[in-house]
Amino acid sequence: MILLSIDPGTRCAGYGVMIREGKRTRLVDWGCWSMSGRKSLIQRVTDFHRFFKDKIEEHNITSLAIETPYLGKSVATYGKLSYLRGILYLLSGQYDLDLYEYSPRVVKQAVTGKGGASKEEVAALVVQFFKGIDKDGPLKDDTTDALAVGLCALWGGQPSTICRQLSL
Amino acid sequence: MILLSIDPGTRCAGYGVMIREGKRTRLVDWGCWSMSGRKSLIQRVTDFHRFFKDKIEEHNITSLAIETPYLGKSVATYGKLSYLRGILYLLSGQYDLDLYEYSPRVVKQAVTGKGGASKEEVAALVVQFFKGIDKDGPLKDDTTDALAVGLCALWGGQPSTICRQLSL
Repeated sequence: MILLSIDPGTRCAGYGVMIREGKRTRLVDWGCWSMSGRKSLIQRVTDFHRFFKDKIEEHNITSLAIETPYLGKSVATYGKLSYLRGILYLLSGQYDLDLYEYSPRVVKQAVTGKGGASKEEVAALVVQFFKGIDKDGPLKDDTTDALAVGLCALWGGQPSTICRQLSL
Repeated sequence: MILLSIDPGTRCAGYGVMIREGKRTRLVDWGCWSMSGRKSLIQRVTDFHRFFKDKIEEHNITSLAIETPYLGKSVATYGKLSYLRGILYLLSGQYDLDLYEYSPRVVKQAVTGKGGASKEEVAALVVQFFKGIDKDGPLKDDTTDALAVGLCALWGGQPSTICRQLSL
């Protein structure tokens, strides 16, 4: 399994690429891809597609992992994030990738042992597990959130949706 | 302007292709593209992308028109429809198409003269305008809704969003 986990955002999208080799988990790529707020939403959606299409091809990704969406304070934000999720569904279909979705609670539980863990606790565990990834400075929440989703998937968290297997 | 107007749906997507030639409006393609509910959402999103990508190339589309989204009874449905809208944003970016969004009220006002018109009234006006399009039987609401959005765009309805022009 070569896994790309993503925390989509219209300003910043955290991501990580992990490979499971026996009992080892190797992190080969990670970061936060920023999009200028001055670009149109169309341009950002199109750039988001291009960026992750390139990542999928570069790393021969086999699976995607994301969090299940939930309606937060803003319906408009929920809608825009869903545009980006739609792009990930499309890439999953075009590249024949499994797509796993996990609830935020399941991710926190898998990574910290506590379903109600704070963002800081999640980030601390991720940085502790992947020693040295913060050597160039603290990571953004978007990045540690994406890495937490990836660890959850590799560690066998219970997905709320496994898109291809359940539906085909 | 060669306009593709779409009423996205995860089971059925209505669409129309119209060309404005001077004062005439010519309807060159229309219908309702059905997706099986037995297919996974990934597959439907991917098929939706392929279908409208092909329409854009076939007709040399220059502009897209859709309705502005609103949160109806179901957050889940709103999310899934937003996946499809994200695909239209992507196609708009990839093919350099203008994308116009109109509120349902503006569409009804433009087509029937009444912002609070019923679906039936909208459908009746659309069928009256494009004489003969129902010769093979009554059209689905998804189709007449999409055609109404297209007429609104060609008749100069006030868009709530003009995606490229406003934001670039």
